[in-house]
Amino acid sequence: MHSFEDLAKQFAQYFNVRHFPQQPATLYDADEYFLSLGGKRVRPVMCLMGNELFDEISDDAWPVAAAIELFHNFTLIHDDIMDKAPLRRNKPTVHAKFGDSTALLAGDVMLVVAYDYLNRIKNDFLHQILHLFNRTAKEVCEGQQLDMDFEKKDVVKMDEYLTMIELKTSVLLAASLQLGSILGGAGQANQEHLYQFGRNLGIAFQIQDDYLDAFGDPAKFGKQTGGDIMANKKTFLMIKALESANPPQLKELRRLMNENPDDKVAKVLSVFHDCGVDKWAFNLKDQYLNAAFEHLEEMAVVSARKQPLKELAHFLIQREY
Amino acid sequence: MHSFEDLAKQFAQYFNVRHFPQQPATLYDADEYFLSLGGKRVRPVMCLMGNELFDEISDDAWPVAAAIELFHNFTLIHDDIMDKAPLRRNKPTVHAKFGDSTALLAGDVMLVVAYDYLNRIKNDFLHQILHLFNRTAKEVCEGQQLDMDFEKKDVVKMDEYLTMIELKTSVLLAASLQLGSILGGAGQANQEHLYQFGRNLGIAFQIQDDYLDAFGDPAKFGKQTGGDIMANKKTFLMIKALESANPPQLKELRRLMNENPDDKVAKVLSVFHDCGVDKWAFNLKDQYLNAAFEHLEEMAVVSARKQPLKELAHFLIQREY
Repeated sequence: MHSFEDLAKQFAQYFNVRHFPQQPATLYDADEYFLSLGGKRVRPVMCLMGNELFDEISDDAWPVAAAIELFHNFTLIHDDIMDKAPLRRNKPTVHAKFGDSTALLAGDVMLVVAYDYLNRIKNDFLHQILHLFNRTAKEVCEGQQLDMDFEKKDVVKMDEYLTMIELKTSVLLAASLQLGSILGGAGQANQEHLYQFGRNLGIAFQIQDDYLDAFGDPAKFGKQTGGDIMANKKTFLMIKALESANPPQLKELRRLMNENPDDKVAKVLSVFHDCGVDKWAFNLKDQYLNAAFEHLEEMAVVSARKQPLKELAHFLIQREY
Repeated sequence: MHSFEDLAKQFAQYFNVRHFPQQPATLYDADEYFLSLGGKRVRPVMCLMGNELFDEISDDAWPVAAAIELFHNFTLIHDDIMDKAPLRRNKPTVHAKFGDSTALLAGDVMLVVAYDYLNRIKNDFLHQILHLFNRTAKEVCEGQQLDMDFEKKDVVKMDEYLTMIELKTSVLLAASLQLGSILGGAGQANQEHLYQFGRNLGIAFQIQDDYLDAFGDPAKFGKQTGGDIMANKKTFLMIKALESANPPQLKELRRLMNENPDDKVAKVLSVFHDCGVDKWAFNLKDQYLNAAFEHLEEMAVVSARKQPLKELAHFLIQREY
């Protein structure tokens, strides 16, 4: 059994090589540049953990983990084009540095290389792995489309937002675990519990992210808070506030969103407090976290093997801010 | 044995179904829209023909053929974004109709669905099919990148242009045939000859395309000629002319390209004639076509089975204009 940190180190060693041909450099340098920006590599480590929950880590888990990380980076490159984001991890995004067209192609070819890694595994699980990988890839695209659709909508309902978050964020975390568990020889019921652990954890993570953007301590959170509020972004908090505010609160929220006054963030936070949205979000996050742990409990695996997954949950979700 | 037309009809029947989920319609309607624009479906038919050259058409050939066609359409959607093309098959392109972001995602998810089709085949050939499909997909992306790189270059050498054309156009035709032949149980040598048949045919096709854009009869060619010349596009003809023109001819070409006079097309064609570029291209096309037929001859398959591939070559390359 390996800890999260240990697996992260091992994966970095496996992954920190060149993944693309040298030529044409105008294309592949863009891919290598983006991968060089790093990242926490949470998803591939989850794949390794999903495997090790049931068996020793299979030789096939490494290429599958790499495929997951490449897929994730492909989505980031393309999302950054769509969002016209200038920076990612404090460095220029691929399209900012290499142009939109090269970024588009660099993403495309990264997805193909992800499938190349999947094709390295033995026959036994190839169909199953491809099936789950493809289903998840489609869902992530759907989530991104819904996210863009919501930007154009005045009202987004909570269940719609939840669906979007599941697709855009949670399913890849969940699938990463399940892909690993398939290689570990897990049965169907255990696979499903593991998937649901990841799905619920992912939603809890997103609620926390939304919460911290509003109420986090910038020193601990690592970035300026209030960004979502400034951008009128639909978040768990804003959607709940719009659903639960009384008429004067609603009027105030709408005014702040339309007029963008200098004290907008403070005023919106004040409405959030008055509606009890902060406590609600804190509790909702705990509900999803608890649901995740229930699925972990349900898995027919000796308790000690589950320890790294508990570490992972605590790594992703801090209960204090 | 089936004729090209017969296989095209059968494939249309297999392929003309809905390939994408209903929701989110904002994403998947864009995919279905693009597929509804049609096309000659040459590549998937080539896959079926490559299979039938060696054996009865396998059940697996149909999903592989569909994957090839979806891959091809994915590249068209993304190429149209990069080229800012307003029309494709006389209809609005996906990005023109649905916006750049949705077009980007619609392309992405179409590539994923292509892999879903590949995953429908039996275990036996899955690794081999994925390997060739992935290699080809990477090459097509490389070809598109080189094409964009060349737009920014003053001088493109003939061998550079040839490499670009091979990657962007020929390898997918070649791979379509080979993918089918793998499913037909072809040996390595026959697979290679079939691939080279497709590769040479693809280059001949592109030379013809460049030739017809300059010298074609618009009534027979089906579109206005001179478009490449107006856009200063590097084509087989232009690159050869720039390489073989004498100093006054070169000066005239450069002047025409810089000044874009009203009689630009006629004047450039006149230089092409003076340099003998038209005859050169006509002969070069025949050289590649002959090379293709030599590889067809070399294949250890009874002659009658090769008839549909000869039909295909004549369908793609007309010797008269």
